[in-house]
Amino acid sequence: MDYAVIMAGGIGARFWPESRQARPKQFLSLFGSETLLQATLSRLNGLVPPERMLIVGSAAHEKLLREQVPYLPPENVLLEPQGRNTAPCIAYAALWIRKLGFPEARMLVLPADHFVGDVGAFQRTLRAARELASEPGVMVTIGIRPTRPETGYGYIQFEDPPLRWIEGQPVHRVRSFAEKPNLATAERFVKSGDFLWNSGMFVWRVDTILEALRRWAPEVLEPLEALGEDLTDAQALGRAYGLLPKISIDYAVMEKADSVYVLPGDFGWSDVGSWLAVYELAPKDAQGNAFEGSVVALESSHCLVRARNRLVVLIGMHEVAVVDTPDALLICRLARAQQVKEAVDRLQLWNMREYL
Amino acid sequence: MDYAVIMAGGIGARFWPESRQARPKQFLSLFGSETLLQATLSRLNGLVPPERMLIVGSAAHEKLLREQVPYLPPENVLLEPQGRNTAPCIAYAALWIRKLGFPEARMLVLPADHFVGDVGAFQRTLRAARELASEPGVMVTIGIRPTRPETGYGYIQFEDPPLRWIEGQPVHRVRSFAEKPNLATAERFVKSGDFLWNSGMFVWRVDTILEALRRWAPEVLEPLEALGEDLTDAQALGRAYGLLPKISIDYAVMEKADSVYVLPGDFGWSDVGSWLAVYELAPKDAQGNAFEGSVVALESSHCLVRARNRLVVLIGMHEVAVVDTPDALLICRLARAQQVKEAVDRLQLWNMREYL
Repeated sequence: MDYAVIMAGGIGARFWPESRQARPKQFLSLFGSETLLQATLSRLNGLVPPERMLIVGSAAHEKLLREQVPYLPPENVLLEPQGRNTAPCIAYAALWIRKLGFPEARMLVLPADHFVGDVGAFQRTLRAARELASEPGVMVTIGIRPTRPETGYGYIQFEDPPLRWIEGQPVHRVRSFAEKPNLATAERFVKSGDFLWNSGMFVWRVDTILEALRRWAPEVLEPLEALGEDLTDAQALGRAYGLLPKISIDYAVMEKADSVYVLPGDFGWSDVGSWLAVYELAPKDAQGNAFEGSVVALESSHCLVRARNRLVVLIGMHEVAVVDTPDALLICRLARAQQVKEAVDRLQLWNMREYL
Repeated sequence: MDYAVIMAGGIGARFWPESRQARPKQFLSLFGSETLLQATLSRLNGLVPPERMLIVGSAAHEKLLREQVPYLPPENVLLEPQGRNTAPCIAYAALWIRKLGFPEARMLVLPADHFVGDVGAFQRTLRAARELASEPGVMVTIGIRPTRPETGYGYIQFEDPPLRWIEGQPVHRVRSFAEKPNLATAERFVKSGDFLWNSGMFVWRVDTILEALRRWAPEVLEPLEALGEDLTDAQALGRAYGLLPKISIDYAVMEKADSVYVLPGDFGWSDVGSWLAVYELAPKDAQGNAFEGSVVALESSHCLVRARNRLVVLIGMHEVAVVDTPDALLICRLARAQQVKEAVDRLQLWNMREYL
């Protein structure tokens, strides 16, 4: 039996002005009409039934979370009283599934705000991963074959040759996890051929991850496990979360554990880190423009325009992102998309709360 | 006695999206809080009293015209049933002043949508011009000393040396009027030293211009003169305007008449032809940015931003105009500001009337 655990607690500011504190990235429709969260669930169709899809998100976004997935049983939306990174989120979900009576179920742990181009390939990789993860004690992560020396991702070094093959997919033992590298290191990683991008997707049995947490990160597991039947009680959960460290599952468990395996995935994955990534992944016209909404362009190319609120006219613009919302407008050189966060920091500094 | 005649019938589209058919350029506040029309009247303070300021504009803009100048006697707003260029507008105003009983009054004819940087110098030039124009039969035009080989203006060639001096200002006889030149011709004009820009400002007595119209452009004068006492009757005026040609005063009279004089003006004049001109004339910060409204800029320079409706964030933008209105947004390379009209033509072609 499988549970999907969608981690939807992100609070990123890199998609300002569409993303706001009240509506972070996973709730945005960056590609087509579905939000990233909705698309994350859609691409599990046929792999996990909706009644076994769990979403773990922030209590502050409860209304939005429920609106997004009206077809899920309400109890499948797990609300965290505060964001504590991925380790507490995963521990909470694992305890939840165990409490439902399925300690041997497999968990497919997936971020809610990524892009996958090839859903067929994605599902094939996950099927192989869950087969591998059926074995107690085995922890599986999905690595992405790097296409460029990206410095924005963590990397996973694997052992070659593969330990075995499942449904045509190689399974490698993990040698080490590497934090986000500098450019020279990233180039070395990519050239070496034995590094993959860390996608943040994991598969394991509930009892396996609980055991690993108990061994490597008891400070994460114990306050939650101590809740017992009170796991559903918001107040008790709030108190427990107050005791938890902010820590990622990579740092808390994966970097320390043995029996960690990686399956290389090749399914057009992106973590969609900025408006530049949205531009790159969007369908474009003959001038390389990706327009949404009402746009008139003269002598303009390689622009991303999201104009859902009003007519936008571009004249002589190239490699620029224009993101229009009712109260705020971003005009950003695409190559500078990383600096959107800086602009948001400035709004914060100047206490312009209505725009955050 | 002097009357100011402000020609406010323009319908330009070069300031889209702020300018619309219902609110053309003269009704926009391009510099500070006054509209161009209001500023045109303000800079006549001390030269002509408000009760002798006439505005000639389009009947379609009646409400806007009256709102702009609540301090003018209502009868001082003359409404044209349709735009017929400057010759009919001037004929109408001249007949109006004659009908008031002042055929010997001087008319200071001024476009409503220009910029003047040095109001003191402007008034000195106009004082000299009206002194000169007191003589019957004398037609005076204000020429602007060219600062660059502009191809967007008409030129006036004058005779040297000056015929006389008035209050320290030279008066030249006009040799010829030249249409907008190509660049090579414009360069020759500027280099020659005996060409001025045609500013479209004129001073003459009412009887002088009426006589000139009778002689050189009877097709403009006669249908209006025939109205007699009905000059105030909208229906009769409508019928008369239906008979009038569309013709400029330059073409109808100035290019043909004798006794035409030009006073060189040097008062920071611009006809404000595009957003580029607005940028050039606006006060700028240390990065060369001219911002109005709520703007946050990172690594951006030499931009014009008019953000009266929303917060605008710029990242890595240079030499760009951003003009935000509630229903439409323009983002235009400043060097391409001339193409705004092209964009508006396209909106027209696509029948996007709500934006025109």
